[in-house]
Amino acid sequence: MPAHRYTREELAGAERAAFGLALQARLQDVDAAGVVFFARVFEYFHDALMAFLESAGFPIPRLLHEGRVLSPIAHAEADYFQPVRFGDRLQAEVVKAHVEGSRVTIGYRLVRADSGVPVAVGQTVHACVDAKTFARTELPAGFREALSRI
Amino acid sequence: MPAHRYTREELAGAERAAFGLALQARLQDVDAAGVVFFARVFEYFHDALMAFLESAGFPIPRLLHEGRVLSPIAHAEADYFQPVRFGDRLQAEVVKAHVEGSRVTIGYRLVRADSGVPVAVGQTVHACVDAKTFARTELPAGFREALSRI
Amino acid sequence: MPAHRYTREELAGAERAAFGLALQARLQDVDAAGVVFFARVFEYFHDALMAFLESAGFPIPRLLHEGRVLSPIAHAEADYFQPVRFGDRLQAEVVKAHVEGSRVTIGYRLVRADSGVPVAVGQTVHACVDAKTFARTELPAGFREALSRI
Amino acid sequence: MPAHRYTREELAGAERAAFGLALQARLQDVDAAGVVFFARVFEYFHDALMAFLESAGFPIPRLLHEGRVLSPIAHAEADYFQPVRFGDRLQAEVVKAHVEGSRVTIGYRLVRADSGVPVAVGQTVHACVDAKTFARTELPAGFREALSRI
Repeated sequence: MPAHRYTREELAGAERAAFGLALQARLQDVDAAGVVFFARVFEYFHDALMAFLESAGFPIPRLLHEGRVLSPIAHAEADYFQPVRFGDRLQAEVVKAHVEGSRVTIGYRLVRADSGVPVAVGQTVHACVDAKTFARTELPAGFREALSRI
Repeated sequence: MPAHRYTREELAGAERAAFGLALQARLQDVDAAGVVFFARVFEYFHDALMAFLESAGFPIPRLLHEGRVLSPIAHAEADYFQPVRFGDRLQAEVVKAHVEGSRVTIGYRLVRADSGVPVAVGQTVHACVDAKTFARTELPAGFREALSRI
Repeated sequence: MPAHRYTREELAGAERAAFGLALQARLQDVDAAGVVFFARVFEYFHDALMAFLESAGFPIPRLLHEGRVLSPIAHAEADYFQPVRFGDRLQAEVVKAHVEGSRVTIGYRLVRADSGVPVAVGQTVHACVDAKTFARTELPAGFREALSRI
Repeated sequence: MPAHRYTREELAGAERAAFGLALQARLQDVDAAGVVFFARVFEYFHDALMAFLESAGFPIPRLLHEGRVLSPIAHAEADYFQPVRFGDRLQAEVVKAHVEGSRVTIGYRLVRADSGVPVAVGQTVHACVDAKTFARTELPAGFREALSRI
């Protein structure tokens, strides 16, 4: 059974996110075409997820260090609406989460800090596996709860 | 009308690609979880596309310098089948291309260099726009032809 | 005549910096050896410089867009005292600046956010050139003044 | 006692290197100023070192996996002579090595592939430590020998 997917309309039109990571497009995020390189946007999304999970009491650095579960990324996608340029002030938001057994789909939106206009949306699908056996395992209860608050 | 999309089965099961970029997962491509960071795989795909286009007579550095058309990325996605570790030898392949008016969908596959086993697949959708007016424009004829040879 | 250089003792032992950029070592900043990849530290330094210049009224994105002067990097160096791991909370500080004609040396320090213990120091030497002719030119007056406040 | 350092003249004027890694400046290596971001040059140097060590029979991925010695970077520096642009064909060369007890200094040069003109030089100083105790340890004999062949 395929993992849950959001439409880009669901992501772009989501309620203003409870959680957002403020960031500014860096000199080195921009490429030779003069706009933020598309793969950097996945880094912005991922940075927002890490910050959200830490704020929710699930700091990934500690969980990774404890080494009980891993959540490798099985799928990632993004839609780009507007080019982003050096110095643009943005907010990377975690706007959706859907848990289904050992799988989680997280939805993201990158908006302009001033206007809230979306410049990109995206989603990642994570599988939750036992760090030793790599067998699929359920998401830890607290984790699932944290995601349900999005 | 949505742009063309490939299924991951179409990408994973494509004929051995005519064009592949040999690469090795670098120390700095791996993240704190010990595997290649998911966004780096988009860089591998993009590097393969640049190398393919150069080999086909369409070097993007020159086209970008001439500044007539731009092809911003409207969508990018990837599916990850296996973790990739530091030093793994890979081949990033351009396996599919679909041109429709001003839009192109390019399909990629990342395989193990020795076995050919796919570790990831992906696709990017590019819009072709006039570099001055940003109006949608048709893909240059030669470009379209190069892609049809994939 | 060689550009001004700071000793690593001067940088490590500088007064607590007036300006510091708070940051956290990201999953993707860490490499396959489990510590922050050495070249990322130069990015932290550079991010701190950009943030400092913006706070001082010299936003590089705008200056770059105006296109009158460029300040290419002629030299960069760093000394690493301690490994930095995923999730470590740091402050990247701009601690020194030395202007001499068309050349500027900027000194940096990366400290642990809690203890202030330095984990790395570094410096970059920039040449100031006219964006059109590439001839060496003096640093704009306001810029020189901003740096003198470090 | 400070580690060995090369002058930039020694590095720029070294004999044509026995070992060089061919590379091309990538779209995403270039920054908002239109030239390769200075920290990327350290990645080119490091990629060349990894490739050299592998070619010399010391693949770092395997050594890291065996986990006996680590060689953290204690110092890194680079001098930049010319801007590098998207698509430029380069060769990253390992041109010097100096072993002294538990410390190694490696010298690098980045040259234009066609003309051999240097665009940058650099060096890294590595400490060799026991992976378990972090005590300084001598460089493994074979490793020292491989470096002596540079």
